[in-house]
Amino acid sequence: MGFCEEQLTRVRHVWERMLDHRFLRETRDGTIADATFASWMQQDYLFVEAAIPFIAALIPRAPKPQRTALGLAIPTLEKELELFRERATAAGIDLVSVRPGFTNHAYVQFLLATAYSASYAEAFTVLYVAEKAYYDSWMVVRAGIDEASAWFPFVENWTSDAFAGWVDYLERELDALAAGAGQSERERMAELFELTAKYEVAFWEMAATGATWPGLDAQVS
Amino acid sequence: MGFCEEQLTRVRHVWERMLDHRFLRETRDGTIADATFASWMQQDYLFVEAAIPFIAALIPRAPKPQRTALGLAIPTLEKELELFRERATAAGIDLVSVRPGFTNHAYVQFLLATAYSASYAEAFTVLYVAEKAYYDSWMVVRAGIDEASAWFPFVENWTSDAFAGWVDYLERELDALAAGAGQSERERMAELFELTAKYEVAFWEMAATGATWPGLDAQVS
Amino acid sequence: MGFCEEQLTRVRHVWERMLDHRFLRETRDGTIADATFASWMQQDYLFVEAAIPFIAALIPRAPKPQRTALGLAIPTLEKELELFRERATAAGIDLVSVRPGFTNHAYVQFLLATAYSASYAEAFTVLYVAEKAYYDSWMVVRAGIDEASAWFPFVENWTSDAFAGWVDYLERELDALAAGAGQSERERMAELFELTAKYEVAFWEMAATGATWPGLDAQVS
Amino acid sequence: MGFCEEQLTRVRHVWERMLDHRFLRETRDGTIADATFASWMQQDYLFVEAAIPFIAALIPRAPKPQRTALGLAIPTLEKELELFRERATAAGIDLVSVRPGFTNHAYVQFLLATAYSASYAEAFTVLYVAEKAYYDSWMVVRAGIDEASAWFPFVENWTSDAFAGWVDYLERELDALAAGAGQSERERMAELFELTAKYEVAFWEMAATGATWPGLDAQVS
Repeated sequence: MGFCEEQLTRVRHVWERMLDHRFLRETRDGTIADATFASWMQQDYLFVEAAIPFIAALIPRAPKPQRTALGLAIPTLEKELELFRERATAAGIDLVSVRPGFTNHAYVQFLLATAYSASYAEAFTVLYVAEKAYYDSWMVVRAGIDEASAWFPFVENWTSDAFAGWVDYLERELDALAAGAGQSERERMAELFELTAKYEVAFWEMAATGATWPGLDAQVS
Repeated sequence: MGFCEEQLTRVRHVWERMLDHRFLRETRDGTIADATFASWMQQDYLFVEAAIPFIAALIPRAPKPQRTALGLAIPTLEKELELFRERATAAGIDLVSVRPGFTNHAYVQFLLATAYSASYAEAFTVLYVAEKAYYDSWMVVRAGIDEASAWFPFVENWTSDAFAGWVDYLERELDALAAGAGQSERERMAELFELTAKYEVAFWEMAATGATWPGLDAQVS
Repeated sequence: MGFCEEQLTRVRHVWERMLDHRFLRETRDGTIADATFASWMQQDYLFVEAAIPFIAALIPRAPKPQRTALGLAIPTLEKELELFRERATAAGIDLVSVRPGFTNHAYVQFLLATAYSASYAEAFTVLYVAEKAYYDSWMVVRAGIDEASAWFPFVENWTSDAFAGWVDYLERELDALAAGAGQSERERMAELFELTAKYEVAFWEMAATGATWPGLDAQVS
Repeated sequence: MGFCEEQLTRVRHVWERMLDHRFLRETRDGTIADATFASWMQQDYLFVEAAIPFIAALIPRAPKPQRTALGLAIPTLEKELELFRERATAAGIDLVSVRPGFTNHAYVQFLLATAYSASYAEAFTVLYVAEKAYYDSWMVVRAGIDEASAWFPFVENWTSDAFAGWVDYLERELDALAAGAGQSERERMAELFELTAKYEVAFWEMAATGATWPGLDAQVS
C-alpha cells in the first residue's frame, strides 16, 4: 500500500467529515442558496489565484522532471480562473472587490509557508491533498447535481478525466517521494497530510457559514 | 505623524475590539476560568516558539543595523519560553503534548509566509503590529489585575520597560521604513498592518472560546 | 530618461567590455574553436535550465499582471532547452554528463539567492539585465556571422522579434518598478544592475577560457 | 563510519589542495605579504558578515533543538566581526569601503541559495563543511606561525577549543541527519559537501591572487 492510500485511511475521520459537508450535499441536491454559492465562488477564486504562487514556489525545489509538470500546472490554473470569471459574469457575481475571509487567508498562508520552509516532499504532500480533496469533494456533488445547474461547469472541471489524471500523477509522485524519504521526513509528511485535510474541512465550513474573521462582525471585517 | 500612529488611527475599530476582548477583561478582573487561561498558555507557548523562526527569517533581508537587533530578539524569546515553562510547572499545565489550534496555526503560517514572500518593510510591519498588540493588550490587564495572581508574571513580561523599549524601537524603525518606501509598498504595509491586527483579535477569540478546528469537533481535531 | 537607460549609461564600462568580448567576436567571425563553442553550449544549457527555478521563484512575489508574464516565460525557456538539445545532437555534443563550471554555478546561485532574499524589484532588475545582456551580446554576433553557421539558430533565438519584445516588456516594467521604489531600494537596484553585468562578463570569460574551478586543475574539478 | 568521515575521505583530493594552499603556508611561515593578508581580512570580514543571514535562514527549517544552537551561533559571529575590526584598526586596514570580490560574492550567494532552496539537511551540510574547512585550514597555520604575529588572534579564534567543539557538534548532527535521510537526499548532501570544499579552495585562491572579477581589470571592478 502506498503512502497516499495509507494516509487516506489514517485520516478518514477528517476526510469523511469533508465529503459529508452540507455545502457539498446542498450543492449536489440543488438546495444551496445562491448567495452561499456566490460567496464560495468569490473566496475560491482568490484561493485559485493564490495557488499559482504556491505551485511556482515549489518549482525551484523540485526534481527536474516534476519541474516541467508543475510549470504546466500554472496555465491550467489560469484557465480555471477564466472559468470562474465566465460563471461570475453569467450569474452577476462580483469577483473584483472581494477580500479573503479568515479561513481562506489562513489556508493560503499555510500553502506559501510550507512551500518555503518545509522540505520539497512535505510541500508536495500539501499539494496532493488539496487536489485530491477537490476531486473527491466534487465527485460527491457530481453524484446528484442537475447537469443544467449553473454550477455544473465547476463540477465538470474538477471531476474531468484531465483533473483525475493530474491527481493520479500527483499520487504516484508522492508515493515515490515518501518511499525515498527518511523516517522523520515521512512523519512530517503524514502530519501535513492531516493538516491539509483539516484546512479543507475549514474551507467548506467557511463556504457554508460566511467568510468572516473571528471576533469581528461583518462591518469591522 | 508617523506611519505607525497613522495606521493605529486607521484600524482603531479593530484595535478597540482587541483591547476590549473579554479574555483580557476577565484576566484583569481575576474572573477568568483556570482552564481558559491554561489553554491560552498552551497555545501562546507554541506561538512564541514559532516566532523565533519568523524573526530568523527576517534577518537575511534586514539592513545591517536591524540584523543585530533582530538577532538579539531570539534569546529574549527563549527567555520568554522559559517563563511559560516555569509558570506551567507551577500551575500543573502540560506544554509538551499540545497541538496548535486552527487560529494559532494560521497566524504562524501568516508570519512565515510574509517573512518569505513579502518585502522586508512589509514583513517588519507584521512584527511591529504583533508586538505592539501584545504591549497594549497586557497594559489593559495590568490596569486591574491582582499582583498576587499566578498570571502576573506574564503581565510583567509584556508591560516591562524592556518590552516597551523594544516596541518603541520597532515603531521608530517602521516609521523610517515607511518614510523610505514607495507608494505601492506603503499601501501593502497598511494592508498588512490591518491584517495583523485582525489575526490578534482572532487569537484572543481562540483563547476565549477554545483551540479547535472549524467543522471538526474536539475528538476529530 | 528611465531607470534602465540611466543604468546602462552608468555601467557602460562593464557593458562595453561584455560586447567586445572575444567569445562574441570570434563567434561572429566564424573563428571560434568548435570545442570552445561546445563548452559554452554545455554550460549555457545548464544555465537556462536553472533560469526556470529563478523565474518561478519570482512569481510568488510578483504583482498579479507580471505573474502571468513570468508564468509564460517558463515554457519559452523549455523551448530554448529544446533548441540546445537539437543543436547538440546535430553537432555531437554531450549535454547529459556536464557539470557546471565555477562561474556558471556562481551565477545561478546569485539568481536564486536574489530571488529569495532581495525585494521583488531588486530581483526583477537581475532578470532584466541578464536578458538585455543576451540580446545585446547576440546582436553583436548577428552583425557578422554566416547564416549557414551551425550556431546561427542561437543567434536567431536571442535576436528574434519575440525576444526583443520580451526585453522591451521587461524594460518598461523595470522602469515602472524603479519609478515607484523608494530611494534606498532604487540604490540597491542600481547595485544589482551592475553586479549582473559583471556576472555576464564573467560568463563570457568562462566560455572563452574553460569551465574550471579556481585552484583546481581539470582532473580535480 | 559516519557521513562526515566518509565524505572527507571521498573529497580528500580537494581537501588536500585546500590545506596545502600557499596562502595558508605563507601565513604559517610568516612570509605572507601584508597587503595579501589585508586583502583576505577585508574579504573574510564581508564573508563572516554574510554568514549571519545564512545561519538565520537555516533556523526556520531546523528541528527545534538545532534552532537554539544556531541562534547562539549568531552572537558568536558578531564577536568574530569584532575581532576583525580590532585587528584591522591595529593594522590600519580599511573594512568599511570594501566590496566583495567575485569569489567572495559567489560563495555568499551559494550559502544563501542553498539555505533557501535545498533541504535542511543539505543546507546543514554546507554549514558543516565551511566550518570544518576553517578549523582544518587554520590548524595548518597554527602548526608553525609565530605567536607574536599580528595575525595570531585569527589562528586562535578558529583553532580554539570552543570552535573545535562547535565543529564537533555540527559533525555529530550532520551524521545523524545523513543517517536519517533517504538515498537521494544523501546523494545531494554528498554533492554539496564536495561543492563547498571547492568553494573553500576558491576562497583561498582569491585570498592569494586578489579579489577581482573575471574579465574586468581592477579599475573596472
